[in-house]
Amino acid sequence: SSRVSSSGSSSALSSLHTVEGVWPLPQSFTSSTERYPLNPKAFYFGYGRQSAAQQDCSVLDAAFKRYFSLIFPDYTSGSGDKPFTVEIRVDHADCDSYPNENSSERYNLSVSAGQASLNAETVWGALRGLETFSQLVYQDDFGTYFVNKTEIDDFPRFQFRGILLDTSRHYLPVQAILKTLDAMAYSKFNVFHWHIVDDPSFPYQSRTFPDLSSTGAFHPMTHIYTQSDVRRVISHARLWGIRVLPEFDSPGHTQSWGKGQSDLLTPCYRGSTPSGTFGPVNPVLPSTYQFMARLFKEVSSVFPDSYIHLGGDEVDFSCWKSNPDVRAFMQKMGFGGDFTKLEAFYMEKIVNITSALKKTSIVWQDVFDYHERRSSLSVVEVWRHGCYLCEVRRVVNAGLRVILASPWYLDQPGPTHNWARYYTVWPLAFKGTEEQKKLVIGGEVCMWGEYVDATNLTPRLWPRASAAAERLWSDEKQTSSVDEAFPRLQDFRCKLVRRGIRAEPLHVGHCKHEYQGV
Amino acid sequence: SSRVSSSGSSSALSSLHTVEGVWPLPQSFTSSTERYPLNPKAFYFGYGRQSAAQQDCSVLDAAFKRYFSLIFPDYTSGSGDKPFTVEIRVDHADCDSYPNENSSERYNLSVSAGQASLNAETVWGALRGLETFSQLVYQDDFGTYFVNKTEIDDFPRFQFRGILLDTSRHYLPVQAILKTLDAMAYSKFNVFHWHIVDDPSFPYQSRTFPDLSSTGAFHPMTHIYTQSDVRRVISHARLWGIRVLPEFDSPGHTQSWGKGQSDLLTPCYRGSTPSGTFGPVNPVLPSTYQFMARLFKEVSSVFPDSYIHLGGDEVDFSCWKSNPDVRAFMQKMGFGGDFTKLEAFYMEKIVNITSALKKTSIVWQDVFDYHERRSSLSVVEVWRHGCYLCEVRRVVNAGLRVILASPWYLDQPGPTHNWARYYTVWPLAFKGTEEQKKLVIGGEVCMWGEYVDATNLTPRLWPRASAAAERLWSDEKQTSSVDEAFPRLQDFRCKLVRRGIRAEPLHVGHCKHEYQGV
Repeated sequence: SSRVSSSGSSSALSSLHTVEGVWPLPQSFTSSTERYPLNPKAFYFGYGRQSAAQQDCSVLDAAFKRYFSLIFPDYTSGSGDKPFTVEIRVDHADCDSYPNENSSERYNLSVSAGQASLNAETVWGALRGLETFSQLVYQDDFGTYFVNKTEIDDFPRFQFRGILLDTSRHYLPVQAILKTLDAMAYSKFNVFHWHIVDDPSFPYQSRTFPDLSSTGAFHPMTHIYTQSDVRRVISHARLWGIRVLPEFDSPGHTQSWGKGQSDLLTPCYRGSTPSGTFGPVNPVLPSTYQFMARLFKEVSSVFPDSYIHLGGDEVDFSCWKSNPDVRAFMQKMGFGGDFTKLEAFYMEKIVNITSALKKTSIVWQDVFDYHERRSSLSVVEVWRHGCYLCEVRRVVNAGLRVILASPWYLDQPGPTHNWARYYTVWPLAFKGTEEQKKLVIGGEVCMWGEYVDATNLTPRLWPRASAAAERLWSDEKQTSSVDEAFPRLQDFRCKLVRRGIRAEPLHVGHCKHEYQGV
Repeated sequence: SSRVSSSGSSSALSSLHTVEGVWPLPQSFTSSTERYPLNPKAFYFGYGRQSAAQQDCSVLDAAFKRYFSLIFPDYTSGSGDKPFTVEIRVDHADCDSYPNENSSERYNLSVSAGQASLNAETVWGALRGLETFSQLVYQDDFGTYFVNKTEIDDFPRFQFRGILLDTSRHYLPVQAILKTLDAMAYSKFNVFHWHIVDDPSFPYQSRTFPDLSSTGAFHPMTHIYTQSDVRRVISHARLWGIRVLPEFDSPGHTQSWGKGQSDLLTPCYRGSTPSGTFGPVNPVLPSTYQFMARLFKEVSSVFPDSYIHLGGDEVDFSCWKSNPDVRAFMQKMGFGGDFTKLEAFYMEKIVNITSALKKTSIVWQDVFDYHERRSSLSVVEVWRHGCYLCEVRRVVNAGLRVILASPWYLDQPGPTHNWARYYTVWPLAFKGTEEQKKLVIGGEVCMWGEYVDATNLTPRLWPRASAAAERLWSDEKQTSSVDEAFPRLQDFRCKLVRRGIRAEPLHVGHCKHEYQGV
């Protein structure tokens, strides 16, 4: 049957409402011009008889509800009156678990007359397939919904596809975080890296150390994340198949910690007297490690994911250098004047604390660079600019896993149309064995908070983060052309707008449904 | 009486909740630490007995309603139970008119116990004073509203303080325009320059030439401004004391016009045959001027303001050069090979058409640069980068009025914190007489639409446009320090956020009331 093309300049986009319109691009698909009308009144999601998950599977039941309204944003009379069923079959009924580093996200989607079959090993794979199915559905000019005959076999290129939000430099209301999780799922991101505390504020309300937020947050009541807020974020993320990884960055980036925990930070000296200012966490006091052990014990139980981010970046040594107790400790330990040894000593202790809690730790590349005993490290996040692939190579040569963030610092001001810069990133373009390349477990978009809060987060993040998402999910060979990606990304951006996400425009043009909020 | 200072890091801001917190800075004020509690249940706006405007004055009655909710965003029990009245007195009951180029915006505001007196020559001045009063009111930590004893004498430095929105490169829903008008009034902008049509689309639905939008808009039904939409914008703007100036830019920037008006654009030639593409408006056909006369007649009646913007920028001569009819006309007119003469000929005709309609025309600086008979011009808008004050000087030397836009191209990507670039602009820092400097009637913030639509307009515009607003309203000597402006602008930005305007953050920090939307 023939396609009804829209009028005017929208025709370029409407011709994409077949499988090419899926973002990020599935690994393998076969589409057809054969199409089936969908009638919201006769559209069903169902569990296949052989599916391990059946009704009452929390993840999928919730997903069916969400995707019904995402697929049918407005009702029309509809020309199709035959029923259409999306039948889900999963191998494991992991409905009440959390997604983890080993979760398969593979799925197979087969759309034919009256039915779509969605097969996946896990419910997380089924979620990815539902997202794809929802992007396959389109409306003609009369409002009727259609989906084309399609075959898709899909799986992510990288296991770790993250977005970092910074809730310390500006506080982000929980609603803004939840909305970002929604948008992440639309681009098949699967990790929310919550850079929850830093120098400017400590919004995490700790059960063990409530003073940290009551004195370290911007405001003790309105600018904090309660235990219930955190649970809400984790639970919302779970239903989208997204892991939540908290970062409690130390020993630097901890100014706000000092307000609620005396003796934690290093007192800086001017000559022989304390100057009244404080530096990084004090690495010489046993009380520091007792505090950290208790804090990380709590954090490990609050955040179910097996990964935890320990930070370790940008430690300024000048305060340590000024402090006589620190200098004495350096001498005692035989560190000479090399403060990187002190930092490594500190990080090793923190890594051991979290290892004992059965957590896999991520550290920023600084720790890898300074650390001599690299075998205690697990995952290194590469963030510095310059030759970041050189660093990636060094890390995998040491046998450690890598997350790449350097090319995806989206908080940097810049024109929307530089999305191509985030698209044309080749994370594996370094000399290495197949085994070494497998150590690159993924990448991360970083949205630091210096100039970002709930007023501008969404347009700064989307659709540029979606460019990174395709790099992390899709086959590199099929997605190497910026020119081919451009109209697809424009189309996808309009889908985001239709779903209520304030994704910025890429260039002159329009969406059939413009953003209607104010 | 003593001030209750807020806790933690918000104290730096809360100390500003006196008159220094008014943005843009009033010309003259005296504030006091003496403060009066305000109880929403006993707070009244009233007309002074000597006021020319009395009850049923549309502009002020509507302003009273708006400002009541702006002043009291939430109700509290309030400790004050004595009544407080803001008494307005204006010299002219210009309640049903439109603000114009000569409207006085001067006001005097005197706040004392139980009463504030607001005196102004016009209702437009009264609106500016109400805005100021609303910014003087603050809440203590217990939610009680206060206003300090204050004396303010205020008037704008420049008569023309505009914002340009471009609704051609992206369509902006009417709601987004109305919301921008609200935010404009908060910064005391008084001109909305509506760059309504351009190459990519023609969303203005003309009564005389309906085909212009039905074929030239992105979509003939959903991406247009009906006559009723335009009336709504003008009426909303009027109630804020904002003029609406339409721009119908020609002869360049008219690709979208050609779709609905055949023979309007110049057919381009490749060698001796038409190439099928079109260039600027065809200046050699009498039908062109008949069309323009009818279009501008309609536009002049739809938009009540006495100014109209005729564009005239960036005309590409290559298509004119290729066209044999245009070349023949050039020869007949004795223009030689100088196409700027042809452009000047065209613009002169358009200026004459609008003069006959009793409109003052604004043109982009290109027209001034090319025009030999400058006496037919009135107002020149300087937009090119480089030495823009050199151009300002040339224009005032020719005795023409100037609007300065060059330093305020806010659509340009860039960090929020470059607000200082828009603040440190000195529009009169050129050699000239007092009379010549008076010819600089104001300035304009330009928000071009290549990368901007309703998803990101607001955070890109605010609070950076507010930096320009203070430059255009306030005394230059009192507002020359970026360091002094910074905390005031941060405070003002939080006021915008509290009013529901998604104004971006300037730097690390927080607002007492963060943006709550998603």
